[in-house]
Amino acid sequence: MNKNSTKSSTKHVSAGSTASYSPHGDTPKDAGFCSKEAGSGYKAWLGYSALETGTAARYVHLCRSICARGSDPLVKTAALELKTAFKSLTGNAPRMVRVPSKNGSVVLEVLSEKPSGDSPDPIQEVPGQEGYIIKHVSTGTGQFLLIAGRSGAGVLYGVFALLRLIQCGSFSENCHIADGPATALRMLNQWDNMDGSIERGYAGRSIFFDKGYFINDTERIRDYARLMASVGLNGIVLNNVNVHRLETRLITKEYLPLVSRTADIFRQYGIKTFLSINYCSPMELGGLSTADPLDEGVQAWWSEKASEIYDYIPDFGGFLVKADSEFRPGPFTYGRNHAEGANMLAAALKPYGGLVIWRCFVYNCTQDWRDRVTDRANAAYDNFMALDGCFADNVLLQIKNGPMDFQVREPVSPLIGGLKHTSFLLEFQITQEYTGQQKHLCYLAPMWKEVLDFDTHMDGTGSTVRQLLSDAPAKGMHTGFAAISNIGDDCNWTGHDLAQANLYCYGRLAWDPGLSPEAIASEWVRQTFGSQPFVFETITDMLLRSYSIYESYTAPLGIGWMVNPNHHYGPSVDGYEYSAWGTYHRADCHGIGVDRSVALGTGYAGRYHEPNSTAYEHPGTCPEELLLFFHHIPYTYKLQSGTALIQYIYDSHFEGAEQAAVLVKRWEALHGRIHPECHARVLKRLQEQAIHACEWRDVINSYFYRKSGIPDEKGRRIY
Amino acid sequence: MNKNSTKSSTKHVSAGSTASYSPHGDTPKDAGFCSKEAGSGYKAWLGYSALETGTAARYVHLCRSICARGSDPLVKTAALELKTAFKSLTGNAPRMVRVPSKNGSVVLEVLSEKPSGDSPDPIQEVPGQEGYIIKHVSTGTGQFLLIAGRSGAGVLYGVFALLRLIQCGSFSENCHIADGPATALRMLNQWDNMDGSIERGYAGRSIFFDKGYFINDTERIRDYARLMASVGLNGIVLNNVNVHRLETRLITKEYLPLVSRTADIFRQYGIKTFLSINYCSPMELGGLSTADPLDEGVQAWWSEKASEIYDYIPDFGGFLVKADSEFRPGPFTYGRNHAEGANMLAAALKPYGGLVIWRCFVYNCTQDWRDRVTDRANAAYDNFMALDGCFADNVLLQIKNGPMDFQVREPVSPLIGGLKHTSFLLEFQITQEYTGQQKHLCYLAPMWKEVLDFDTHMDGTGSTVRQLLSDAPAKGMHTGFAAISNIGDDCNWTGHDLAQANLYCYGRLAWDPGLSPEAIASEWVRQTFGSQPFVFETITDMLLRSYSIYESYTAPLGIGWMVNPNHHYGPSVDGYEYSAWGTYHRADCHGIGVDRSVALGTGYAGRYHEPNSTAYEHPGTCPEELLLFFHHIPYTYKLQSGTALIQYIYDSHFEGAEQAAVLVKRWEALHGRIHPECHARVLKRLQEQAIHACEWRDVINSYFYRKSGIPDEKGRRIY
Repeated sequence: MNKNSTKSSTKHVSAGSTASYSPHGDTPKDAGFCSKEAGSGYKAWLGYSALETGTAARYVHLCRSICARGSDPLVKTAALELKTAFKSLTGNAPRMVRVPSKNGSVVLEVLSEKPSGDSPDPIQEVPGQEGYIIKHVSTGTGQFLLIAGRSGAGVLYGVFALLRLIQCGSFSENCHIADGPATALRMLNQWDNMDGSIERGYAGRSIFFDKGYFINDTERIRDYARLMASVGLNGIVLNNVNVHRLETRLITKEYLPLVSRTADIFRQYGIKTFLSINYCSPMELGGLSTADPLDEGVQAWWSEKASEIYDYIPDFGGFLVKADSEFRPGPFTYGRNHAEGANMLAAALKPYGGLVIWRCFVYNCTQDWRDRVTDRANAAYDNFMALDGCFADNVLLQIKNGPMDFQVREPVSPLIGGLKHTSFLLEFQITQEYTGQQKHLCYLAPMWKEVLDFDTHMDGTGSTVRQLLSDAPAKGMHTGFAAISNIGDDCNWTGHDLAQANLYCYGRLAWDPGLSPEAIASEWVRQTFGSQPFVFETITDMLLRSYSIYESYTAPLGIGWMVNPNHHYGPSVDGYEYSAWGTYHRADCHGIGVDRSVALGTGYAGRYHEPNSTAYEHPGTCPEELLLFFHHIPYTYKLQSGTALIQYIYDSHFEGAEQAAVLVKRWEALHGRIHPECHARVLKRLQEQAIHACEWRDVINSYFYRKSGIPDEKGRRIY
Repeated sequence: MNKNSTKSSTKHVSAGSTASYSPHGDTPKDAGFCSKEAGSGYKAWLGYSALETGTAARYVHLCRSICARGSDPLVKTAALELKTAFKSLTGNAPRMVRVPSKNGSVVLEVLSEKPSGDSPDPIQEVPGQEGYIIKHVSTGTGQFLLIAGRSGAGVLYGVFALLRLIQCGSFSENCHIADGPATALRMLNQWDNMDGSIERGYAGRSIFFDKGYFINDTERIRDYARLMASVGLNGIVLNNVNVHRLETRLITKEYLPLVSRTADIFRQYGIKTFLSINYCSPMELGGLSTADPLDEGVQAWWSEKASEIYDYIPDFGGFLVKADSEFRPGPFTYGRNHAEGANMLAAALKPYGGLVIWRCFVYNCTQDWRDRVTDRANAAYDNFMALDGCFADNVLLQIKNGPMDFQVREPVSPLIGGLKHTSFLLEFQITQEYTGQQKHLCYLAPMWKEVLDFDTHMDGTGSTVRQLLSDAPAKGMHTGFAAISNIGDDCNWTGHDLAQANLYCYGRLAWDPGLSPEAIASEWVRQTFGSQPFVFETITDMLLRSYSIYESYTAPLGIGWMVNPNHHYGPSVDGYEYSAWGTYHRADCHGIGVDRSVALGTGYAGRYHEPNSTAYEHPGTCPEELLLFFHHIPYTYKLQSGTALIQYIYDSHFEGAEQAAVLVKRWEALHGRIHPECHARVLKRLQEQAIHACEWRDVINSYFYRKSGIPDEKGRRIY
């Protein structure tokens, strides 16, 4: 963690209108000190570095003034952002005007369906409720640049789009842009606990909570909201899906005023606030003897609770629920299924437009490793497919991208494309639990892009995941994205400065799943580090190679789980092999991999539509990067390249560690070209990565050499 | 943990004479609830169950009255114990008298060198300062039983001996017993932290500390002192050797009054109080810029500190120091060696008769697993042998029984028998960190006995460890035993009721290293469960077999370390294989074990005197139970029995798990014959052990089967 010496103290909320809310005896200490200076990384991709002189002059003309029409608070947010950005980019602060000036005005406007006097009516061009248009409009008195939407959020997204285009050199004077998000819900899940810890957080502590209190750092939260809105994110779940004792109380009068105040900040950026809830709340908070979803008392309790919550937060988003999963309570306790469990909550929220987001991460976490029939990969599918169509229309299932748990390589969950009549959110993990914990560079867009482009064949060829997401609204279903955030109270938000790219690319892909990882990396680097070619090309290329490098020196060919138990950092090949978590590689002296074929294995391959199912069924047609996920393969098996499996393991691990070292060299070459503090911070992490990649290489290679007895063809050092 | 419902609250010390001592804002909650009823296990082996009617009648005559001569407070302690015990054993409470009555008095007396009027002078018969005599004495007015020593402690030990003999049926009317401890120091180390946790504690939380406070449960502490004194223990270190921030302050005026009050309790039972200290105290407490032992300011600081401590506790025992070990600070920081580090403290304590106990558990805990030259087994020897003779005469080195860390099977540390001119304490671990964590039954006397009987050949044949310990005082050296306690605030002290036997046998062996595990088990069972033959024989036999059973289903033939990292419970064969802790088994598809020979390995075998060194050097002469500790052996190697190594691994693990199941059956057969609460508690743990032994069996066997590819000859199920 890099903490700068310039500190500003923040306060904990424990008094004011809720003076007596806290049952805790502790006096909280100040927390969340943070430098916001250049080089600290705090501004992330919203630093708005000065444009080159020529370019700047050109844009001064574009926006000499800003005319924010109407009273929508988000339009005011947008106008302020635009003003700040232009001042920073061009050195010239636009004036705020009530009518567009003759030359060089930008007009921000929420359009309504009524004829506005302009013709043709521009609202027809705006894609959806959150879309925007950016175009030059001529009027009797002159021309201006119109950024408009059907909502304040649309206008705000339009402003961020304009600023992005300018910084990327992609803005054209004659532009006529109409853009909108592919899905309606684009959420972040905070795994923050009220004690200030973050489950699987690698960038410091929570910016929301500390020692059981809400941290009253409005500025930090608003800046987080800005970062989110700038990439189109519009929802946040404030607390961890594992809802502990204190967090259970977030939906009580004790804490709702504080949740409400946090929601107020996010609302200014078009972001709705959600909470993770404890399924046992009626018992723990309400004193009921049951949490059975079919119990009338329970139903009444939740209805009343919903009413209470919406009194405080009229646009409250809804509940995120991890139920009957990893020891969390849920409807199973009462012999009810997930649909019964979720629909009860949905009925309570329905009158207020709230949603229930129900996680599908349900499996037997007390499996016997000796049991080769049960397969955790099947669990989510088997638990939820039978309920397809049984969920209320304001319930969404939140499905992790793969069937296991955010490993560096997994197939796409067969629930996606399996469920036909159920709304769902695709869940990614931005925080790098299994992908290097923000000590290793691992730009995740390539992984996510493969998921989005995966053809489920649900409705024949072309039923890609992103197509399913885009098509869902037309079928009357909710749809969208959720991801576990990677930010904490480190000054640079994400620990590793380059991990900011993952937060960025998540938002951009959630908005437009058709974007390429290259395009997004390019956008992010230009906005964060500028467009100087050597810097731009180096960092972009480092990002784009990083996932493949990370994969190459860690668990090979989709096998996963070769990490140290609990914290999940660093190699331990057998760390989860004899565990109760359903996470096995089944390596012996002859071969490795889990047979998930229908014919001989756990049958998981059969959960997919054809032709995927058949392709996965056979080693010869299984995509090679998933070979060990689907099959138990002898070390002597020849891969398509002609290399034996064991030799591939050795080669990829030697190669991966070498490439990790190359990342250090490439970054060192940027010395003097980017801010020295940022350079030093990243360099330190890349150096740790390079050393740790050797640890991965040596542990993995030694493990398989010791087990197989087959030496490296190239005679390299294995221990 | 079994907590009974009958609860008595205890108080935390935070006020009274030290009203303002605590810097902490927390209000502590009540802790340490405990039932002391029969069946709770609280009374341990001091329950003094009623003797059979005939026997009881006989003993009524022995002690109709007690005459405690003199004013020694320990004699009063002894008299009270005797009275309580006799009342409980016989139903008849002895009277306290000032002169012995004609028939049936027991006289307790501290003898002095002056002629007492009796002839011959009985003091000449008392072995040492803490020994005792028990004998019938005739006077002009009649006969009485004399229990006498040179100190109150001797008298107290004599009383406990009498009570033990009576309960074991070994007391003879014509007895004439003279007994004394083999060594002067017989200590327990508490690994208790002031937050109430116990490092490697498996029986609840600390009875001394909670939430940063001293717990004011005088009764519980006194009962612990009673248990200790009853087996001859005479020293206690109150806090963990890993001295954290708060515990560093135990030697300040803030906490010394509380340490003193605790010492007062132990003093009543002849037990001296010691503290673990932080080597950096002069910096952390004194504000000095260094803790260099050769710095005059540091020396002065410790001298002053010693003076302060002895103001509060005039018979303070001294310091236990873990320095330059596992990230603890020490003299190495200043380029000083252990002798310089220890002697500086020794000089400070010398004027008051205090001791410095310096742990030898020093090794490189950031080793690279790829390094096959460095061997942790060599570390303590190599660190301390060069300093033999350099330590001040009030310094003792505390040496773990083996060179690694309390594994179920290790050779005896070569430092013992290596050091010729240095006082030392032999360190055992009663708390079952690596021996089943008080969920598994593992009576440790057989392991310790093997250590004590090991012939170091320091001065030729017969230089057994126990001989060295016994001989040391004659050479002007301190000597004794230390062991990490296994108690916590569980009502039955040790979690597993049968683990009380380990605390008991440690004390008894420290008193008399010549005792057999059988004899001690027999004593303990009779005092704890009575002498009904079926009960007695069953439990004694279960105890005596338990170490061998535990060893058979865990790590084979001395290899050690096949446990889950951090908590050390349950199997993980590779858990420490690729770690930085110096703990490797080097298993590959051909064989397993660490070559520690001089010719081909790390040279560790050469640290022993001949003929041990040569015996360990060669697989054919190496004691087979240590084969894998000293040698890397092919799976196909034939053991002396003719069985191949791999088959031995399979056989011993199948056999061990079967035997663990037998323990359950044997205990079940005691149903109705011992207190039902105790029976149920132990049964539950034995059942867990039986299940967990299968887990061990299957993980170990599967690991080696998968690695070697060699099937079990008997075709049993391996996964």
